[in-house]
Amino acid sequence: MNIHVFETPEQANDSLIRESACVVIDVLRMTSTACHALSNGAGGILMKASAQEAMAQAKAHGALLGGERGGVIIPGFDFGNSPLEYTQDRVYGKRIVMSTSNGTKAVEKAKGARRLLLSSFINVSACAKALSEESNVVILCAGTEGRFSLDDALCAGALAFRLNAREQNDLAHALSMLYASERCDIDKAVSRALHYQRLVRLGFTDDLRFCLQEDTCKVCPEIGEDGWFH
Amino acid sequence: MNIHVFETPEQANDSLIRESACVVIDVLRMTSTACHALSNGAGGILMKASAQEAMAQAKAHGALLGGERGGVIIPGFDFGNSPLEYTQDRVYGKRIVMSTSNGTKAVEKAKGARRLLLSSFINVSACAKALSEESNVVILCAGTEGRFSLDDALCAGALAFRLNAREQNDLAHALSMLYASERCDIDKAVSRALHYQRLVRLGFTDDLRFCLQEDTCKVCPEIGEDGWFH
Repeated sequence: MNIHVFETPEQANDSLIRESACVVIDVLRMTSTACHALSNGAGGILMKASAQEAMAQAKAHGALLGGERGGVIIPGFDFGNSPLEYTQDRVYGKRIVMSTSNGTKAVEKAKGARRLLLSSFINVSACAKALSEESNVVILCAGTEGRFSLDDALCAGALAFRLNAREQNDLAHALSMLYASERCDIDKAVSRALHYQRLVRLGFTDDLRFCLQEDTCKVCPEIGEDGWFH
Repeated sequence: MNIHVFETPEQANDSLIRESACVVIDVLRMTSTACHALSNGAGGILMKASAQEAMAQAKAHGALLGGERGGVIIPGFDFGNSPLEYTQDRVYGKRIVMSTSNGTKAVEKAKGARRLLLSSFINVSACAKALSEESNVVILCAGTEGRFSLDDALCAGALAFRLNAREQNDLAHALSMLYASERCDIDKAVSRALHYQRLVRLGFTDDLRFCLQEDTCKVCPEIGEDGWFH
């Protein structure tokens, strides 16, 4: 197996993405939220970078709307970006269209991939299992405002650590080593992240606790031919 | 103190560079070589990204020429990019114009900085001391072919670890933690780097051993008003 990790979607080149199984990571909070919603029985999730397009698609498909800008719910949407909102009684059997600041852009960048999956700390082992037979894996960290984000990077390390590939780019090696040294206390390591501190200020400490647990979720969302994650 | 680390020069924005003390790191091998040459008494080093411009400047100043493309000496140059070539008997009192694949580009990107210094593992504590009174520090990793390079990144972590600033960007936090966990065996950690392996194939194992020692050099090269590093 060959693994390439990129700190932001912009860093990855499209031809590499096309020939790879691609994993998008946006720990705080989009991919955590999507994993949890599907785990609670949501009937599919569609990602749209533009909030307006998300609204149009939700209307066309009779779907619910989830997402944020600046960390808070978009006016008129059914859900924000907190995984804890996506409870079984609210999402079971429902389709959801999501639009978030960083994560949905990463998904759009990866649309041409041979396979497209979502990972976070809560499903990192399920994701590793789903990738075990692949020869080329690209891990795209969503980042924060186009920058390296410690939460996504450490999760990319957690995934690379589990995949333990023979060939890795330098960032995959660095993050796999970092994860190996910090995995006893993921919350402490990630608490240094700018984005973590921003969510603390916004009052989302329960979300942080939820998103920084490993392997509480057995689902690995993967995009289907219909363009929805299942 | 506030520290921003960037994995490649392209990531840094010019306005931040202008208001900061900026450190360029190209462990394998440009900044290691420059530190060693100045430590051996070279009279000044001028960096030029273009080999042709380096030749013109060397002619104008009666200086020697050093540098590489693809890891090997540029035809007609006096030195390659191996620090071990820059011995006291060859460089004492001499001025040197250098041009290398990644490092000199990083220096050109940082030309507008308030201060501009060079660091590597061999002088990382000297560099930290030179920066101790600064309020804004930017660390530019040269990278390898526009990508994150483990050798430069781990050295940036070594510097951030020593500076121990109150404010740091996420990459500075990540690399400082990585250095803290790997500092007992820098060579082993960096041996995973693509660029390390390329230099092994080219036969530069002595250079690798030399460049991955910490604090064997007391010099921290800094650019002067004349545009030369002293």
